Amino acid sequence: MTKTTKVGIIGIGFIGSDHLNRLTKTIANVDVTAVCDIVPGKAQKVLDEQGLQAKDFADYHELINDPEVEVVVCTASNEAHYEIVMAALKAGKFCFCEKPLALDAKQCMDVVEEEQKHGRRMLQVGFMRHYAPEYVQLKNIIDSGQIGAPLMADCRHYNQTQPEEYDSTRSIIETAIHEIDVMHWLLNDDYKNIKVYLPKQTRHVQNKDIRDPQIVVMETKSGINISVEVFVRCQYGYDIKCDVIGEEGVAELPTVPQVALRKNAKYSTEILTDWKARFESAYDIEFRDFIAHVSEDKSPAGPSAWDGYVAAVTADAALKSIEEGGKTQDLDIPESPKFYKE
Amino acid sequence: MTKTTKVGIIGIGFIGSDHLNRLTKTIANVDVTAVCDIVPGKAQKVLDEQGLQAKDFADYHELINDPEVEVVVCTASNEAHYEIVMAALKAGKFCFCEKPLALDAKQCMDVVEEEQKHGRRMLQVGFMRHYAPEYVQLKNIIDSGQIGAPLMADCRHYNQTQPEEYDSTRSIIETAIHEIDVMHWLLNDDYKNIKVYLPKQTRHVQNKDIRDPQIVVMETKSGINISVEVFVRCQYGYDIKCDVIGEEGVAELPTVPQVALRKNAKYSTEILTDWKARFESAYDIEFRDFIAHVSEDKSPAGPSAWDGYVAAVTADAALKSIEEGGKTQDLDIPESPKFYKE
Amino acid sequence: MTKTTKVGIIGIGFIGSDHLNRLTKTIANVDVTAVCDIVPGKAQKVLDEQGLQAKDFADYHELINDPEVEVVVCTASNEAHYEIVMAALKAGKFCFCEKPLALDAKQCMDVVEEEQKHGRRMLQVGFMRHYAPEYVQLKNIIDSGQIGAPLMADCRHYNQTQPEEYDSTRSIIETAIHEIDVMHWLLNDDYKNIKVYLPKQTRHVQNKDIRDPQIVVMETKSGINISVEVFVRCQYGYDIKCDVIGEEGVAELPTVPQVALRKNAKYSTEILTDWKARFESAYDIEFRDFIAHVSEDKSPAGPSAWDGYVAAVTADAALKSIEEGGKTQDLDIPESPKFYKE
Amino acid sequence: MTKTTKVGIIGIGFIGSDHLNRLTKTIANVDVTAVCDIVPGKAQKVLDEQGLQAKDFADYHELINDPEVEVVVCTASNEAHYEIVMAALKAGKFCFCEKPLALDAKQCMDVVEEEQKHGRRMLQVGFMRHYAPEYVQLKNIIDSGQIGAPLMADCRHYNQTQPEEYDSTRSIIETAIHEIDVMHWLLNDDYKNIKVYLPKQTRHVQNKDIRDPQIVVMETKSGINISVEVFVRCQYGYDIKCDVIGEEGVAELPTVPQVALRKNAKYSTEILTDWKARFESAYDIEFRDFIAHVSEDKSPAGPSAWDGYVAAVTADAALKSIEEGGKTQDLDIPESPKFYKE
Ligand SMILES: [Mg+2]
Ligand SMILES: [Mg+2]
Ligand SMILES: [Mg+2]
Ligand SMILES: [Mg+2]
Repeated sequence: MTKTTKVGIIGIGFIGSDHLNRLTKTIANVDVTAVCDIVPGKAQKVLDEQGLQAKDFADYHELINDPEVEVVVCTASNEAHYEIVMAALKAGKFCFCEKPLALDAKQCMDVVEEEQKHGRRMLQVGFMRHYAPEYVQLKNIIDSGQIGAPLMADCRHYNQTQPEEYDSTRSIIETAIHEIDVMHWLLNDDYKNIKVYLPKQTRHVQNKDIRDPQIVVMETKSGINISVEVFVRCQYGYDIKCDVIGEEGVAELPTVPQVALRKNAKYSTEILTDWKARFESAYDIEFRDFIAHVSEDKSPAGPSAWDGYVAAVTADAALKSIEEGGKTQDLDIPESPKFYKE
Repeated sequence: MTKTTKVGIIGIGFIGSDHLNRLTKTIANVDVTAVCDIVPGKAQKVLDEQGLQAKDFADYHELINDPEVEVVVCTASNEAHYEIVMAALKAGKFCFCEKPLALDAKQCMDVVEEEQKHGRRMLQVGFMRHYAPEYVQLKNIIDSGQIGAPLMADCRHYNQTQPEEYDSTRSIIETAIHEIDVMHWLLNDDYKNIKVYLPKQTRHVQNKDIRDPQIVVMETKSGINISVEVFVRCQYGYDIKCDVIGEEGVAELPTVPQVALRKNAKYSTEILTDWKARFESAYDIEFRDFIAHVSEDKSPAGPSAWDGYVAAVTADAALKSIEEGGKTQDLDIPESPKFYKE
Repeated sequence: MTKTTKVGIIGIGFIGSDHLNRLTKTIANVDVTAVCDIVPGKAQKVLDEQGLQAKDFADYHELINDPEVEVVVCTASNEAHYEIVMAALKAGKFCFCEKPLALDAKQCMDVVEEEQKHGRRMLQVGFMRHYAPEYVQLKNIIDSGQIGAPLMADCRHYNQTQPEEYDSTRSIIETAIHEIDVMHWLLNDDYKNIKVYLPKQTRHVQNKDIRDPQIVVMETKSGINISVEVFVRCQYGYDIKCDVIGEEGVAELPTVPQVALRKNAKYSTEILTDWKARFESAYDIEFRDFIAHVSEDKSPAGPSAWDGYVAAVTADAALKSIEEGGKTQDLDIPESPKFYKE
Repeated sequence: MTKTTKVGIIGIGFIGSDHLNRLTKTIANVDVTAVCDIVPGKAQKVLDEQGLQAKDFADYHELINDPEVEVVVCTASNEAHYEIVMAALKAGKFCFCEKPLALDAKQCMDVVEEEQKHGRRMLQVGFMRHYAPEYVQLKNIIDSGQIGAPLMADCRHYNQTQPEEYDSTRSIIETAIHEIDVMHWLLNDDYKNIKVYLPKQTRHVQNKDIRDPQIVVMETKSGINISVEVFVRCQYGYDIKCDVIGEEGVAELPTVPQVALRKNAKYSTEILTDWKARFESAYDIEFRDFIAHVSEDKSPAGPSAWDGYVAAVTADAALKSIEEGGKTQDLDIPESPKFYKE
């Protein structure tokens, strides 16, 4: 018999329903005691669909303050993250917030400051790639020194397609944000500058102002050059690439295994088209780790509010580079506070 | 709030401890209420190590009959499987039994007959490969007709190494047994005959009577030729291969993804050396599925007692072929009873 | 200015035209001075098509005896190989003969005996795989001891398709013959026995007596087990596989490099459908080596009459196994004469 | 009997000796009638080593004007290319010149103008990648429209190591030059601008002014973004990569095939360390094609003086970008003259 952690989820949309399902069916020793959605009836409908029972609050403050809620999971819309996270922190509850932490660098810094008042980390941001076994393996290889000091990194983040409203800005703050986050973790380095290239636009978007693909180039303080090709309508699938080139060798992120077919004069393997399938086990491991920590009243060990802040500052500069036709933007990210270094 | 299933585990050795850990930390909605091991104190020691609390029975009959045990998991030594499974069935409890189901075909047939008295399936055998996503994908491709009718299959089951006492017999009943089981499921076909080749022995075993590698060749009733190279001291790693060759193409089981390195004039990826790591997620999915069924009082849907029986009959014939210097053994496996066809 | 070797080609059919083209356009320092074909006018027609001039003999004896012919290349039909090769040897001329050397083991032994009268090797048989860079690399790795003593080999020889008249016999003497030859060279070992499995027949052949695929299993004197899947109507392409499993590791023959495509949710590379393209550079290297030797009046260094004999004896036994429903045939191949060991 | 083309080679150093060997041993229907090297005795020594006979001229003008020389091959040092090529053109002889065509854009333009006086192409520049089967295949795939309009390209040109004197400039004009050349051919597009990134320097070079790696980013007139990582001391091998990303998919240049090994818990293939081995067959095909054309008095069809000019202009701009700390340099390359379009 092991301790059960009582969780409340705020925002039962696409990702919220998914996490609700995960926390009740896949993660051990969790009890989802409460849910809340801004749209009346929406949360209850999802509970019914999933065959679950939980309190359904109309007001997220009530959920946060319910004594039956030990831990808050925020999967509300991006605009609401800031308020919810601040409320959870103020209530002294552990909180998991889907990325992005907040809408801009300023809001993120507020959260960072609020969290520090508690004297220990209370918050984890949902950058799940830190938990993907292939990224963990890649990080271990880099940290082991096997490839020597990293000098360059070559990344791709391709989506099969996105609707017309997914514009250049969203390609940065919803797509490239993952590489912005994961690369500084992987390389143990901070960014010095950022520039966005705007190659020829694909014909698969009508609006001439939407630049797709884009190439984000970042340089770190130690001089590592990181190139991220962001292409959200590549047509062929969801494809993630990350090669890290060091002084002694190269390490390359693998892809998911697939049965190989030899047929019709082709050797082929499938490429996923769904990003959720690509990182499904990362999400599971992420929550297992988060719950393992908070269930024992320990600070979460995953991506922090500071990581959320760094990502926000960097993404803001990328957007400015696009605005200025690809001009390089210098970044002035302060050293990570001691609070956020283990 | 979802229903919690109460599980008792009999046999807390290597694999039993692992399943105990899995059922308490990784599988949702399970409560391990009782354990039992033939060695006094052993089960309690493992509970302590894993930070768990459960009843610790000295006699497995008591565990089976405890009203706090809804489901029995049998991870005792192979010799004890038969008795435990029969007792669990007689007590009318759902039971998960690690493979092999029993020591020989006769015992397996007894279990089959006992189970049928209950009018529905009560038992699942731990052939976890049925749950490995790559095998499921391979089966789906075969079943979809994409490669046409299967004609041949080419398999490898290599272990990095085994101690001297792992003899030719164990290579069949503990190693080849997995391919014997998984191939008839994958191909929807029964075996007609079996023959074991005894190639040159590797220098990595001293006892001249131990044949390693061995090649098991089976022919199915429809004429599919299946070759399984069994090599339990291949030195280089744990390696599983399964190519199915059909009238229109070939489908090949993938391996686990690993970071690729370019270093010292080599492009390389790691090969696992530990079989548990290779099929870890298969074990998780296996138990998640087993619990999902029995928690709702439904028959388990995984490998059945009949599968256990087929594997036992076939392995027995393989051993006879070895004894007779590689002579082909005809098999006379009856049609699967209607009871075991969904 | 380097010496030019004068070559006469007998048999200007499919493969003869190809070698004519190769010897005049691709191989340096060769002059094709004479050609001959049993069909009147056929050789001249090919000369015209390729923009070449050479003497066109009606009778191959005249070609062989022409002082302007230093070296004989025999690309006549299989039935004629024996006579032509014997005549070339008796005339004391170096000779390259396409495989098979002759129609049966008896004829091959005659050639072996005739050649030995000359006190040195005069003949090379066209088993071009000995010159394929990937096979040479594989042999070097085996010979270097990197994988330890070979214990098993796993081969495939698949053709995309063959006409109905390509029967089980031709699958052995024209297709499997390549593996029969190359494996004893690769493994430095002789065959002890051979057996042919007859799996379920593909639907892509009408005649029920034609068994396709077939699996040829050979055991060598040292106990290496070699499995060759022969499938001449596999539909998907021309595919050659050769894995050699040793005591310390496995070495795998690579395939030809192809541009990879990521498109339509598939990662794919092309599989060749044409065997000539697969081994084109092997043919070039083969003739370059043959000419390099004979141009300096040195014995050819490639596959010998003895190799032709071994292949013939082994193929004969394979055919007998098919006839006898898959019975294992013991082989009694004598030690290679000292004459054929360098 | 086919026509023999009489070739004179100027410059019998590293690459000159190699081409001498190729033209006499590997390429059919060529006679190397004359050689010349600025170092007295050097050419004769190489002739002797290779067992060849040819006239050995002290003065390259004499070689060019010898009636026994139909075609000039220039493999002299880079500084001498311009003079030799101009002299060969003025003498009305076909000429093959190793890359670079000349030392700068101005010299290249002189050659372009001289050649046009002859009313037809007389010259081919040794950019051998145009003949590498994998690049040809990649170009065919792009031209076929299978990946749609190209939008980005991602290239690597890594050498295992270079001596200290191989500085940032040489990394551009001897290494990156190949990608500069091959990409405009592959993409059928001209360059609009170029920029060189200077990432963190590898520890494997002492001189702090030598930047290694460098990343060359070029944009074409149609907006294609090309990134070339140039790293001439990557330690692990000679590695060439070229991915072309189009609107509908991605095409990736393959590497050379190598036997795969499974050993010591690693699956591995060798990476070449020698660039000559990587492109050996490209060199053979290049000369076979060049000779095939000029032997029939046809203009060569390979890389032209114009290609040499484009490469020179672009490389000059790259050097300027390095000088200016990575500033983007606009290029103003005129349209290719009609003379150079087929
Ligand atoms: Mg890139
Ligand atoms: Mg096999
Ligand atoms: Mg096989
Ligand atoms: Mg790159």
